Amino acid sequence: MSLRSSSVRLGDLLAQVRPELDRVGKELIAELRAEEWDLLPLVELAASFRGKQLRPALVLLAGRAVGALGEDHVTVAKIVELLHTATLVHDDVLDGASLRRKQATVNAAYGTEIPVLLGDYIYARAFHMSVQLTDPTCSRVLAETTRRICQGEITQILHRFDFTWDEERYYRVIVDKTATLYAAACRLGAHYAGGDAAQVEAADRFGLELGTAFQIVDDCLDLDGDETVVGKSLGTDLARGKLTLPLLWMLAQRGVGDHLANLMRGNGDERQKLRELKRAFPLEQAIAYAMEGARARLASARAALLELPPSPARDGMEGLVEYVIGRSS
Amino acid sequence: MSLRSSSVRLGDLLAQVRPELDRVGKELIAELRAEEWDLLPLVELAASFRGKQLRPALVLLAGRAVGALGEDHVTVAKIVELLHTATLVHDDVLDGASLRRKQATVNAAYGTEIPVLLGDYIYARAFHMSVQLTDPTCSRVLAETTRRICQGEITQILHRFDFTWDEERYYRVIVDKTATLYAAACRLGAHYAGGDAAQVEAADRFGLELGTAFQIVDDCLDLDGDETVVGKSLGTDLARGKLTLPLLWMLAQRGVGDHLANLMRGNGDERQKLRELKRAFPLEQAIAYAMEGARARLASARAALLELPPSPARDGMEGLVEYVIGRSS
Repeated sequence: MSLRSSSVRLGDLLAQVRPELDRVGKELIAELRAEEWDLLPLVELAASFRGKQLRPALVLLAGRAVGALGEDHVTVAKIVELLHTATLVHDDVLDGASLRRKQATVNAAYGTEIPVLLGDYIYARAFHMSVQLTDPTCSRVLAETTRRICQGEITQILHRFDFTWDEERYYRVIVDKTATLYAAACRLGAHYAGGDAAQVEAADRFGLELGTAFQIVDDCLDLDGDETVVGKSLGTDLARGKLTLPLLWMLAQRGVGDHLANLMRGNGDERQKLRELKRAFPLEQAIAYAMEGARARLASARAALLELPPSPARDGMEGLVEYVIGRSS
Repeated sequence: MSLRSSSVRLGDLLAQVRPELDRVGKELIAELRAEEWDLLPLVELAASFRGKQLRPALVLLAGRAVGALGEDHVTVAKIVELLHTATLVHDDVLDGASLRRKQATVNAAYGTEIPVLLGDYIYARAFHMSVQLTDPTCSRVLAETTRRICQGEITQILHRFDFTWDEERYYRVIVDKTATLYAAACRLGAHYAGGDAAQVEAADRFGLELGTAFQIVDDCLDLDGDETVVGKSLGTDLARGKLTLPLLWMLAQRGVGDHLANLMRGNGDERQKLRELKRAFPLEQAIAYAMEGARARLASARAALLELPPSPARDGMEGLVEYVIGRSS
């Protein structure tokens, strides 16, 4: 039940797409570097946030699972990673977060204005890279994915401290803001490898379920994680009134809900509220409940995989399911 | 020399593309309306900022000046207007502006987070519309234009209160942040009407010069305009250390420059600083100097027009040159 029991090493799972994944990282930094010198330190700071490269890895794994990887896969993987980086930069403005991957965020270092523009800039670079591809599918999926990410984030913000919020809306929001990008990564990987419609849909569904589970785990880590391991500010959902799955469960418990609403609305910073949550609330049960939700999604993700032919790449995708359940950062 | 002497009516200039321009406005609002209901009031608020529709009008005029208008022109005009709207929404966050077109800005009404995401959302819609076009030129130009807008804005912010700033860098920034979108509008209008390379380049150059002049006039209005006419918060450049052309001229004047730097860096809000600027500085001369710069750009814009065949649409574009010089809002 612990969030820290993973025995799956991400590096092993990604070994079979390692050469392409390394190209993504290297070329992305090299290409972003060829810029106005004024923007260089900013772009390098943003690039340093990237971390696990799960999304570009999914492009590559899904591609290999249905066919051969081509040059387009590396490009699509870069685009997906750029889009993710742009959302991270904007997210940190929204959250007022000061820490990301154990480093100062762009807003902590430069104030609010620069990261707003830097996110736009990185997004424009992703779009620019995308329209160079002959096949416009990537551009279309990218545009629609971005729209949904924004829609999900806006909806979430508009309903902070909205204690009428429910699980159905929670899931709708996390699908929009997180899972669509995972789905897009898998869909595009399969599409650019020449997968047929059923394979492309299966890859998309796998990504959607995996991404949904990933966000649930993320929401658990925000309450129950170790800041030194996770590498970003924790407790922000609690303090900012974001009604995540474990919080929704506690809010629905008789004799607990009202107290939790008061804690969330009350004075005190993230750390104080988090301490109080751990001290006086059934956090462990709430996390267990939420992790059950994540597991259900991961079971669906596994089911979707069965529609792809067996292969080491498919095994790698299945390994990611294990990884997501066990991750502690 | 006054900024308020225009006898050119914008409505007359745009009369010949009025039906298409009206379609742009109506369809844009209708299409943005077909959304998550949560986002509706936000999208409507953003749409209400649009105002003069100069950029979509340029798409249509440039198209008609070199050929016939088609369905693509209306789409491109909408895309250009959406991109402009997205930048307005983000600009208001950056400026901390409270007033836009005599209305509360999105950030004044909703705080910082929503407009960051709303700008992204609108931009994604523009991108989405663009990738539906068969000819990918619009998407390519749009991506590059967005990159340059962000680059210009970031550079400007990084050099606020940088009193080593000079005219050459001022011009480079305003070309990036403002004029490239005018250039893109004209270029795409000519391109989608089947214009030849020389015509497309001439249209681009016209837009670039017109847009540069437009920004210079904007920078003058920020210091010398009438807030009730301009309809947005004035004096922000002064208070935020943006070194615009009239300010650069004053900073270079012996016995004036140091005082101005002190005023800019000192305490006091926008209104107080603006009042002091009008009372104790050679503002009228500075504005006259900057307007000369604008006129030089407009002369180049006129010269570029001569490479297009004579037509009522070309006359309309020429009329915009007069309009920009004379505008007071």
